[in-house]
Amino acid sequence: MKLSDAETVIIENITPQLDGGRYAVKRAVGQDLTVEADIFKEGHDVVSALLKWRRTGSGSWSETLMVPLENDRWRGVLPAAGTGSWEYTIEAWGDSFRSWQDEIHKKFRGGLRDLRSESLEGAELVARAAARAGKSPDAKTLKGFAARLKSANAEETEQLAGEPLLAALMTVWPDRSLATERRPALPLWVDRERAVFAAWYEFFPRSAEGRADKGSTFRDCLGRIDDAKAMGFDVIYFPPIHPIGETNRKGRNNSLKCEPGEPGVPYAIGNFRQGVHGGGHKDVAPELGTLEDFSWLIGEIAKRGMEVAIDFAINCSPDHPYVKAHPDWFFKRPDGTIKYAENPPKKYEDVYPLNFHNADWRSLWQELRDVIAFWCELGVRTFRVDNPHTKPVSFWEWLIEEIHQKYPDAVFLSEAFTRPKMMQVLAKAGFTQSYTYFTWRNTKAELTEYLTELTQSEMKEYFRANFFTNTPDILPDYLQNSGRPGFLIRAFLAATLSPVYGIYSGFELCEAAPVPGKEEYIDSEKYQFKGRDWNAPGNIKEFLTRLNAIRRGNRALQEYHNLRFHPAENDRILFFSKSTAAHDNRLLMAVTVDPFSPQTAFVRVPLADFGIAADETFQVEDLLTGERFFWTGERNFISLNPHSRPAHIFRVRSRAGRENGQDVYL
Amino acid sequence: MKLSDAETVIIENITPQLDGGRYAVKRAVGQDLTVEADIFKEGHDVVSALLKWRRTGSGSWSETLMVPLENDRWRGVLPAAGTGSWEYTIEAWGDSFRSWQDEIHKKFRGGLRDLRSESLEGAELVARAAARAGKSPDAKTLKGFAARLKSANAEETEQLAGEPLLAALMTVWPDRSLATERRPALPLWVDRERAVFAAWYEFFPRSAEGRADKGSTFRDCLGRIDDAKAMGFDVIYFPPIHPIGETNRKGRNNSLKCEPGEPGVPYAIGNFRQGVHGGGHKDVAPELGTLEDFSWLIGEIAKRGMEVAIDFAINCSPDHPYVKAHPDWFFKRPDGTIKYAENPPKKYEDVYPLNFHNADWRSLWQELRDVIAFWCELGVRTFRVDNPHTKPVSFWEWLIEEIHQKYPDAVFLSEAFTRPKMMQVLAKAGFTQSYTYFTWRNTKAELTEYLTELTQSEMKEYFRANFFTNTPDILPDYLQNSGRPGFLIRAFLAATLSPVYGIYSGFELCEAAPVPGKEEYIDSEKYQFKGRDWNAPGNIKEFLTRLNAIRRGNRALQEYHNLRFHPAENDRILFFSKSTAAHDNRLLMAVTVDPFSPQTAFVRVPLADFGIAADETFQVEDLLTGERFFWTGERNFISLNPHSRPAHIFRVRSRAGRENGQDVYL
Repeated sequence: MKLSDAETVIIENITPQLDGGRYAVKRAVGQDLTVEADIFKEGHDVVSALLKWRRTGSGSWSETLMVPLENDRWRGVLPAAGTGSWEYTIEAWGDSFRSWQDEIHKKFRGGLRDLRSESLEGAELVARAAARAGKSPDAKTLKGFAARLKSANAEETEQLAGEPLLAALMTVWPDRSLATERRPALPLWVDRERAVFAAWYEFFPRSAEGRADKGSTFRDCLGRIDDAKAMGFDVIYFPPIHPIGETNRKGRNNSLKCEPGEPGVPYAIGNFRQGVHGGGHKDVAPELGTLEDFSWLIGEIAKRGMEVAIDFAINCSPDHPYVKAHPDWFFKRPDGTIKYAENPPKKYEDVYPLNFHNADWRSLWQELRDVIAFWCELGVRTFRVDNPHTKPVSFWEWLIEEIHQKYPDAVFLSEAFTRPKMMQVLAKAGFTQSYTYFTWRNTKAELTEYLTELTQSEMKEYFRANFFTNTPDILPDYLQNSGRPGFLIRAFLAATLSPVYGIYSGFELCEAAPVPGKEEYIDSEKYQFKGRDWNAPGNIKEFLTRLNAIRRGNRALQEYHNLRFHPAENDRILFFSKSTAAHDNRLLMAVTVDPFSPQTAFVRVPLADFGIAADETFQVEDLLTGERFFWTGERNFISLNPHSRPAHIFRVRSRAGRENGQDVYL
Repeated sequence: MKLSDAETVIIENITPQLDGGRYAVKRAVGQDLTVEADIFKEGHDVVSALLKWRRTGSGSWSETLMVPLENDRWRGVLPAAGTGSWEYTIEAWGDSFRSWQDEIHKKFRGGLRDLRSESLEGAELVARAAARAGKSPDAKTLKGFAARLKSANAEETEQLAGEPLLAALMTVWPDRSLATERRPALPLWVDRERAVFAAWYEFFPRSAEGRADKGSTFRDCLGRIDDAKAMGFDVIYFPPIHPIGETNRKGRNNSLKCEPGEPGVPYAIGNFRQGVHGGGHKDVAPELGTLEDFSWLIGEIAKRGMEVAIDFAINCSPDHPYVKAHPDWFFKRPDGTIKYAENPPKKYEDVYPLNFHNADWRSLWQELRDVIAFWCELGVRTFRVDNPHTKPVSFWEWLIEEIHQKYPDAVFLSEAFTRPKMMQVLAKAGFTQSYTYFTWRNTKAELTEYLTELTQSEMKEYFRANFFTNTPDILPDYLQNSGRPGFLIRAFLAATLSPVYGIYSGFELCEAAPVPGKEEYIDSEKYQFKGRDWNAPGNIKEFLTRLNAIRRGNRALQEYHNLRFHPAENDRILFFSKSTAAHDNRLLMAVTVDPFSPQTAFVRVPLADFGIAADETFQVEDLLTGERFFWTGERNFISLNPHSRPAHIFRVRSRAGRENGQDVYL
């Protein structure tokens, strides 16, 4: 350590921070960032500390005073005020004026009455603050205090040391000449609100009309979109819309043989024979329409208060224009031919993987960034990224940062169904949201453990779950075997446990026919046209509509960290709460995870968390049915039936007073 | 992130590390540093990882392969090989050869038999390794393997992919061109062995002969030193030996009035009228002798296999030469006079505190560093630092680093009896050892909680407890009220719970007379000459001698992190173990914390930790008495009496075989 580096105050263990500031913590506009740190110095000086923040690299800091808690721990809160890159740090110093106040009080109360030297010291401190105040009107007031201190006796000095106006002015004009600022500052990334609260609806544009004989186009999608809007969804997510390769094209049910007229897999991207922009990732499949059609559709979706999400799948079919233009971007065999994808001993001959560390890797990375920028230009801001865990993390970190510089409102959803640490580091590296293991967490114990990790561990600072109930690739065992009640239960869990969730279309129709022995859909629309009645009997559209409306109307469901589990005396009933910090929206959720039999339980209401007295009678209103009940005390009884009433969302109301001879609950 | 920064492998969550590498973790020569990290990359490549270490900034790294544990966690172990500053880091890469092996095995076992392209790829990888091997004889062997691969059929390729010699050579000559190294490297500080295993004995040189009428000199100290040696102590620690100020000198029992002939407080340092080096911190009090006498004494102590520790108390009496030479180093009143020390409303008029942030602070800091360097030149390597928490932490960090550059074997003991975070940061900033709250932890619950924190939390990486039973400033309530049994108990706890411990002389005589109502000694030798019979009846010298001999003979007591508490069915009996990693030294300690009444308990032996079967009969030998017992099973009975048998140290031995008709236990 050099002498010049000498710090006057220890500032350490700042929370939150990720890997020592290597990665940004995340918030959304309107959320707070509560920062804590250990702050202390040698000896008996009184310490003052500020939490400071600004747009990264901008000139001036916003500041707020931090307050000491216990054991040298301090806290400050900053508001996430706009999307983009921010930084925050802490500045602290031994506060000579507050130390002086402390000294005066101790001496005076200890019986000392010769404080002439101390008064003069105080006068000097105040006079220096007056000088710092410069032309501010405060300077005059401070000079007045300094003059009074100069001639003050012990009683007057003690009184001035406790004078609130003087203390306030000295806080405004402190001596920070020996302050220590923690450097470098820590990064904070702020997203827009829809990044943290949204309901997603995924469908294949070619399936919009539900015809088995032919594919729909962008222009045919409004019906499906209006239906999603009516159900209360916010984001319309399309699997890849690009030209589909012909070489080694797969047929129905992933068959290696493709019959004439079969539409191909949208994930085998690229057909240099098609499109008007080269037939690759910057183009749309002609069977869906033109780029103009797609632009029109984006506009229609926006008009409805929703937005579009598209898929970013870095898969190249053998017909992708990159194969011709940049053969060196791909892996090659010793004989010079390009390698197709493999997961030995499985082969995927319709896809060529890219080599992210090829000799010309910079141009590859830049081109892929330009693909995202292309769609941003067209008005897309949300990207669901296919299999990011098979590409370098550093590539994603670079790409997302590049895009965010121009489009700080861009949202990236990581589809990494892989090992936990890879899923986490992708979120740290910049992905806004992440797919999760939710799809396979079915029991009360599994859900409790997983959600506690997601919402209460360090992950809450950077990893935002997007709870999909199903995907084109995943028809979970639970849905295969649980009938309509299972769909109600999983929808309820997804929509209430996480503020961001989604369904893949067909879920609302309780589609559940698998490839035998697999967690995959039989006759998947990934490989073929699919006939459907979007209003087929037994659908759960009304339930989804109700759930989405309740989410929109209750702020507690729009937050993530506020999830708390509470005891239910039945291993098949999950009981949890969400509440706003101000307690103006308090919800209790009860749901059975048993799709077959009725279940009952005594549940324990977290009275203390909700600010309810032990003997108080409070009202609970089931927002799903409108029924109201009066409960008293912690332990209350509930009865659930997976067929008719799989769950409750109770809004808790306390008695606020009496009006027109009736109790009023708010 | 710039494109050029792109990492190919994620290396994160390296443990141990302190504040992201801001501070060094500590080890002593002969100890291991076990490093773990999360290491992984995208896709299916097999990863290889090395733990690397070197003397800080030196050219070449030592390396050892890391091994994967579970969930992407890896581990490597490096040996602390010499005192001083080291650094360690991790390098990892996607291993193309091991990935190839994996691919071959998967394809072959999956039934593929056309592996011609794969064989050629393998041949190319091996040929490149041969090129890297250059002139090494390995090059030829590798070329041979490459040639065989070139013409290998599927079976031969599968066989070569599993060939151990080829795998070993490819590990020796790996392709690290795309490796990622975690930068900057993390710091490791390595101390000499006595920094982590030592018994300290503190005495005032002027009290060496125990005379009430006059002070002893350095030349009179050999008797006391030989006695400490006979008891088995390693470090002789002297309170300040410098000239003592006369102005406002304190008298007996801290009296403001000093009678003529009273010797003064050694902590009021500096008398410009005395000494031959100016009378300050680089001088010795003439009443103790000369610097030559002190040098002679250092030599005598060294001859006995012990070493000396001196006190570094940055206190200046009003007579300190700094007061005249550097008045600006001190705090001044508005009238220009120098301020004495205060803890309002208390005044300490015999001490002037230094202002570490005065305008000329650099020269002050350098002078204080030169004080330490002065004593290092004379042969002192161990410094007990008085009240470091009243000086800036950055000052200590700078000073210790400066001293360690020339004297890496210097040891600094922090006497910071203050708030926990300040104690911790001083240890992080460089202090080798620290005083602790041990002195006030008396009950089983208090001791268990505190020792668990010290030895099992992150503190174990940098904070080394030196358990003093008492100090010239602290006569704990427990010792005041517990009689001789209390001294036995506290000695046992200090000596067995921590590998570094100390006593302040008089403890062995069970001195316990306090200033009424305070935790201070009455008639303290801090203020006066003190008459003593160093062999007074009732002393516990034999017990201390036995404890120190047992510590020396049992490596398990020389380690710190190996402390484990085990159940004893009595709240007054503490039962704990220490064992070497190799299990060649397994100890069980039982001690009563009740100094008044006999206590018995069933205790639970950690059979599994010790590698003992549930039904196995093992031998325990009480190293304090030599008695041997046979125990079977986990639950065993012990009986303690504070007067006659306050504790056991059982050495555990397992039956190794039979010799001459007798069972042999080792």
